[in-house]
Amino acid sequence: MKVLLRAQDKLLSAVIERRSLLCVGLDPDYDRIPVHALRQENPIVWFNRAIIDATQDLVAAYKLNLAFYESRGEVGWSALKRTIASIPGDVMVILDAKRSDVGHTARHYAEAMFDGLGGDAVTVNPYLGRDGIEPFTAYRQKLTFLLAATSNPGAAAIQDSVTAEGLPLYRHVARLGRELAGGTACVGLVAGATQPEKLRLIRQDAPDLWLLVPGIGAQGGDLATTLQHGLNPAGHGVLINASRSVLYAATDTSFADAARAAARELRDAINHHRPNT
Amino acid sequence: MKVLLRAQDKLLSAVIERRSLLCVGLDPDYDRIPVHALRQENPIVWFNRAIIDATQDLVAAYKLNLAFYESRGEVGWSALKRTIASIPGDVMVILDAKRSDVGHTARHYAEAMFDGLGGDAVTVNPYLGRDGIEPFTAYRQKLTFLLAATSNPGAAAIQDSVTAEGLPLYRHVARLGRELAGGTACVGLVAGATQPEKLRLIRQDAPDLWLLVPGIGAQGGDLATTLQHGLNPAGHGVLINASRSVLYAATDTSFADAARAAARELRDAINHHRPNT
Repeated sequence: MKVLLRAQDKLLSAVIERRSLLCVGLDPDYDRIPVHALRQENPIVWFNRAIIDATQDLVAAYKLNLAFYESRGEVGWSALKRTIASIPGDVMVILDAKRSDVGHTARHYAEAMFDGLGGDAVTVNPYLGRDGIEPFTAYRQKLTFLLAATSNPGAAAIQDSVTAEGLPLYRHVARLGRELAGGTACVGLVAGATQPEKLRLIRQDAPDLWLLVPGIGAQGGDLATTLQHGLNPAGHGVLINASRSVLYAATDTSFADAARAAARELRDAINHHRPNT
Repeated sequence: MKVLLRAQDKLLSAVIERRSLLCVGLDPDYDRIPVHALRQENPIVWFNRAIIDATQDLVAAYKLNLAFYESRGEVGWSALKRTIASIPGDVMVILDAKRSDVGHTARHYAEAMFDGLGGDAVTVNPYLGRDGIEPFTAYRQKLTFLLAATSNPGAAAIQDSVTAEGLPLYRHVARLGRELAGGTACVGLVAGATQPEKLRLIRQDAPDLWLLVPGIGAQGGDLATTLQHGLNPAGHGVLINASRSVLYAATDTSFADAARAAARELRDAINHHRPNT
């Protein structure tokens, strides 16, 4: 019998039992995966399974960015489902979908992600406001990560805008997330490592929410500062995502071993900055 | 030989030749489509084709909201492709995807929408800023509609935030859209009919961009005010979207006739407010 865990319990168990705050992004790009993967029947599934086999004991979560699957049409959608099915049941599956819509339509996206694909967590774009987010957070046993401050160069021009209550938008989103969580762990926040001061304020506004942090690795965010600002008193509450730096650590037949080495190195570097590990 | 038109030329031709600013939203909801549609081999495709057959001479565009397809998994993705293939080649296909991501990933979404699905236009969420939008607007022969002011109740708390240059966010997006268009017609804006003063300011900031306007019909926006604020001097530049009020005008076997009547009534009501029609 398969035991159904709440997503947030599953995440915490994975973090503690595997002694890891690492999330590996499964974002297979046909232009970058090893040439010999392209000779397989389904290159995406084959590549993802090799990465999962090589890293599954090192991670607390895998994050699948849907753009890399959608761009392959039905084959990609099928690869997405087969990849999800290949992830061990005790590792969290984050669907990085950045979906958004008005309430009655957002409900269909929430169904697609949580019921259809069976994700434990999903990323949601907050631009449509509270009623566009609530259909996701209505899934109280799942985890909805709101984009607060993203890691890309153009983010600030939008996300630093000041709301009616005098807060920058990314802090408004952090507080809204905390409010929607209502004391539960069903909401988290995306906070890029490339803007550490924002990450600090987001943590201040939402001390009890999980932070999903992109921007370490290829994008150049600083790990020590990120963890200093982001860790909660228990020494967790942060997931550090790495995609390209793990997936493409090597692009020859040694890619899986190289991915494992890169993942292990990052997991250990993260733990080096945590108390009690 | 199939002639490949630029999306913006196709739209203008459809608007002029069909004398219509109407866009019908093909958002098939299993809870609302007629019961006898559910008995068909593929209810979504069957229902959409019936609506397209009944309304195609009345519309300038169809808008497909991807949430209603994704929630059906691979079957839905296939229905999406089959529906697109059923739309006459001289009617614009808008993929209402509200996608967003950082630049190198957004490129994969743009490929999925424009190359994979063959959409003429796509809606994009601007929360990630300029570099998340540019991979879409790089398709200069297509049309990218940025969400400026959406029609839902929670929109204002986010979209009224004030940017560094002292503009509300929805106006910043309007101006950014105009800038990215660079004098071409490859960018449009989504401006909800439920907030007519915002629509007026968006039109002022972007006099030459197409506006895609939801919120008439089920959401209660006023048509006369919307057109007064939105129409350009040539008497177009606005697409009025209707989804539920057309699709579910009746839910028995007369649904297609009722959809046609509702679409014709709205098209005529729109034209009543246009000069020279």
